[in-house]
Amino acid sequence: MSQNAFDQKKASILDEINSIQPDLSPKGTIDELCIPIMDLINSNSDMVTTSSCSGRISVFAEGTKNSNPEVKVGGKGEGGRWIFVSHDSKSVNGWLDNLLDKLDEHSIFINTNIVGDVSLFDGSTRYILYKYEPFILHVKCRNFETASKLYNTAMGCGFRESGIGSNNIVAIRINIKLDIPIGYLDEKTEQFVLFVSRQYIQFLDSITLTKFNDNARKMNQLYNKINNDIIKNDGAAKKEDIIKESKEERRVRKMKEGLERQRLLNESRKD
Amino acid sequence: MSQNAFDQKKASILDEINSIQPDLSPKGTIDELCIPIMDLINSNSDMVTTSSCSGRISVFAEGTKNSNPEVKVGGKGEGGRWIFVSHDSKSVNGWLDNLLDKLDEHSIFINTNIVGDVSLFDGSTRYILYKYEPFILHVKCRNFETASKLYNTAMGCGFRESGIGSNNIVAIRINIKLDIPIGYLDEKTEQFVLFVSRQYIQFLDSITLTKFNDNARKMNQLYNKINNDIIKNDGAAKKEDIIKESKEERRVRKMKEGLERQRLLNESRKD
Repeated sequence: MSQNAFDQKKASILDEINSIQPDLSPKGTIDELCIPIMDLINSNSDMVTTSSCSGRISVFAEGTKNSNPEVKVGGKGEGGRWIFVSHDSKSVNGWLDNLLDKLDEHSIFINTNIVGDVSLFDGSTRYILYKYEPFILHVKCRNFETASKLYNTAMGCGFRESGIGSNNIVAIRINIKLDIPIGYLDEKTEQFVLFVSRQYIQFLDSITLTKFNDNARKMNQLYNKINNDIIKNDGAAKKEDIIKESKEERRVRKMKEGLERQRLLNESRKD
Repeated sequence: MSQNAFDQKKASILDEINSIQPDLSPKGTIDELCIPIMDLINSNSDMVTTSSCSGRISVFAEGTKNSNPEVKVGGKGEGGRWIFVSHDSKSVNGWLDNLLDKLDEHSIFINTNIVGDVSLFDGSTRYILYKYEPFILHVKCRNFETASKLYNTAMGCGFRESGIGSNNIVAIRINIKLDIPIGYLDEKTEQFVLFVSRQYIQFLDSITLTKFNDNARKMNQLYNKINNDIIKNDGAAKKEDIIKESKEERRVRKMKEGLERQRLLNESRKD
């Protein structure tokens, strides 16, 4: 990829980010907690963020596993669905009560005895999984040198499962996830059966809260290390201003940046 | 790293692998299930395996988390210890009974009520974790081109958490782990308290067995894809012979290869 092709790609990605950023709803748009680190990274002309998740709790019912065994491992399967998902640590307490209230007894219930009957379960069982997934960020870099610098910075503050892709996209990952089977979907009756106790789920919630905190601390640490080791070193910065600006100032700056990107994009299309 | 430096490094690593390979015990040596794919990769002159795990079940008691908060996240902590660990799917059934038999009631017991008392637990609680960790392999490549080819091959058969390091070391990873809190270490009494039922643990064991099978299938798929896309293409091969050889033939070949590596190593030291 030539330098020019990277600039074009970056302008196009930032344009997309910018267009969906105004409504900061938790779904389908960018996680609010990711914005500072994304802005920091995007302030460097050799990097652009391509996807991100700030960390989330979720309860997921697996899809069917029978059709294609290759889809199965680690995949979601056909018909998998989110029962609950939130990026907000404040929504962790009480999600189960809300769910049990919302769905009637025919749809979901707790039966802790059933878990003892291992014969009920086999490779095709569609489990209900309690998940905590930490912060993850993908960053496209202009060249391997930049990718390598970002990779080393991330590894240096504990994002030990990071890696560079063959296309200079750095995946920044940390290993603090939870992935716990708490029930299954009875395919005959279409019922969700939870086979751990309400107490155990409340206990998992308390662990998840700790993970949300750990996660925020690690994101902060990464922000500072990228700032010190890459942004400040490159003398690019302006990010001190970015942090201190008001919401209105940010809106104006974003609009100006959007127009500038549009200009760059139009120009590069003419090439 | 010059070509010569890579060759020297490869000879030295293979020498080490070879010296510990004869006794295939599950601890401190190379996992038997990794050997075919390691031999395949090492048959290519541009790659050398640097570390591996074929996949394992384990029960781990976390170490102390108080001293240094930075150590905590995702780390093992000081004084962490394995209660049970095995790379062999045949040892999955019955490990808990063995453990309960071996340790007396003063050391370990089950109390499913305690999990409801969330006030017992905070960020410093030393949990007992039930883990399944899938196959992982690190491969040092001569150059980025080879690393990139291996990375794409691994991603292409579902090892979606793979990545290249800044030093052309490819980490091949798949996301099918389990990481489930099943108890905690009471630091006052030094007792292990399990707060999930024996039935739930047996159920986890059945999931772990499925994971061992999925894992073996994915390793096999990776073996074939590396063989077809990298080894055969490079015309290096000889690996058909490697697979068909008897134990005795393998021993003789390994000895010869060891002598050859020793020669290369000695030569490169003279440079």
